[in-house]
Amino acid sequence: MSPRPALIGIDWGTTSFRAYQIAADGRVIDTVETAEGIANQPAGGFEQTFDRYVGPWLDDGEHLPVVASGMISSRNGWRETPYLKAPADAAAFGAALTEHVSQAGRRLHFVSGLICDDPSGNPDVMRGEETQLIGCLALGVPDGLFVMPGTHSKWAMTEGGRLLEFRTYMTGEVFAVMREHSLLGAFIDADAWSEAAFADGVAASLADKDSVLHRLFTVRSRVLDRRMAADDTAAYLSGILIGEELRAGLAGLTEGADLTVVGAGALVDRYLAALKVAGVGARPAPDAAVARGHHEIARQAGLIA
Amino acid sequence: MSPRPALIGIDWGTTSFRAYQIAADGRVIDTVETAEGIANQPAGGFEQTFDRYVGPWLDDGEHLPVVASGMISSRNGWRETPYLKAPADAAAFGAALTEHVSQAGRRLHFVSGLICDDPSGNPDVMRGEETQLIGCLALGVPDGLFVMPGTHSKWAMTEGGRLLEFRTYMTGEVFAVMREHSLLGAFIDADAWSEAAFADGVAASLADKDSVLHRLFTVRSRVLDRRMAADDTAAYLSGILIGEELRAGLAGLTEGADLTVVGAGALVDRYLAALKVAGVGARPAPDAAVARGHHEIARQAGLIA
Repeated sequence: MSPRPALIGIDWGTTSFRAYQIAADGRVIDTVETAEGIANQPAGGFEQTFDRYVGPWLDDGEHLPVVASGMISSRNGWRETPYLKAPADAAAFGAALTEHVSQAGRRLHFVSGLICDDPSGNPDVMRGEETQLIGCLALGVPDGLFVMPGTHSKWAMTEGGRLLEFRTYMTGEVFAVMREHSLLGAFIDADAWSEAAFADGVAASLADKDSVLHRLFTVRSRVLDRRMAADDTAAYLSGILIGEELRAGLAGLTEGADLTVVGAGALVDRYLAALKVAGVGARPAPDAAVARGHHEIARQAGLIA
Repeated sequence: MSPRPALIGIDWGTTSFRAYQIAADGRVIDTVETAEGIANQPAGGFEQTFDRYVGPWLDDGEHLPVVASGMISSRNGWRETPYLKAPADAAAFGAALTEHVSQAGRRLHFVSGLICDDPSGNPDVMRGEETQLIGCLALGVPDGLFVMPGTHSKWAMTEGGRLLEFRTYMTGEVFAVMREHSLLGAFIDADAWSEAAFADGVAASLADKDSVLHRLFTVRSRVLDRRMAADDTAAYLSGILIGEELRAGLAGLTEGADLTVVGAGALVDRYLAALKVAGVGARPAPDAAVARGHHEIARQAGLIA
């Protein structure tokens, strides 16, 4: 017999919508996943998407609390909520939930994003990753450095269960726009992939003190000089950019600190391979960390026992 | 009375075509400039563009030599020519001219591009800039470091009239694709410009040891945190990228070395302003350096007296 649901968790990002039916002990009972991220919503779409996927779970007789994290509470989302200032722990996120009532009268709680200042005094922001991090810690992942690959990769440091600080790198997005829209695109075979060329690009960025604005050009010059085949270019470009991110992100790493890579699929494998090139050990985060984050924040807020 | 032409020089790049009627002493008598760069040519377009603009000058009774530099001799150009290996001087470029006869029977000479290895062993290449550099030196600009802003900026070092080595930075192209195709674009007012925001971006890159992949994100986070207005974003983004190029390019600069910025228009002014933020003195190169380069290379090749 499957456990009874105690909570609905929603991870609503720019390009995806994920909803979880969660048991009182934090286990995930059921999941809905669609491409209806906030970037793909028509006017009034937030209400409709919410009602379509979460409505049936709520109308099932039970009065379940709902916690929603991610870009859904950004300026372009359903309702903009303020950022919580780092450092912050699960209790702080629980206390900072923003209650919202949908047009259909359904109640939900938005998790605040997190803001911190980088060493240069620039603000840095996340929305959604804070819930994944809280979930990792609740699942027993040790404090340390967390790498969260993506369009905008995050590197976050935790200590004593608190999110201390973090830094964003636009690695995934620079890769996408350079591959699709730059003059390098003409040199790139987008379908081919080479692990060796990827490792080569990572090593090049880790070793080179010149700017990545120069290294990017070597994608072109290596092909022009026939030192690289078109088959190798996409992987080499990806390696250059992820290597650049690692060079910066690992610079402040304490010897022997715990390193966890958060996410799923091929991108996490790619980061684990890059960290291997850098000679740094890392573990992948457990699955469903975000649902566990919803559970922990709801628990701290007193929404579930 | 204007002097008689002794040479035709063509600077044929990716997005522009420029032809010069040049006197025996190197002065420019007449100029034709169009947007018919090699990226905008239909099949057979090279022959037609050449005949249309240069034909009349050649059919004027005189048998003038023609020297053509730039991307026209690249893989996607009229005829691909090999690169000359750095270091190279005007005599080497003169000796390496590639003669070509058009379908209409007109003779021209392509200037070779230049190739060198960067300190990491990657090839770097230029086509067109070598002729501008030779022209600068022929016009009396002292040896030293030359900054050549553009889609793909070049930083070149000369000594004793020879082009020693150079480095390419994809600054202009990264700016364009990030402004037009990235998520930053939604935050950027493309028409607004602020000198103060530009200087702020330059200073940020010069001071920050983190990766430019992180600094790019501050365009977004500063707006989200209301520390920056949308009016300032394009200039700030440009400042970040040009500042990153300067940080790397100036790293190897010898104290008191001569610095010359080659090019024309607003982009050169922008680089001169950025160098001022960096506290580095620089001069703009004289106009028409490329035509003087055609003249000097033709002279070394014995095409003109």
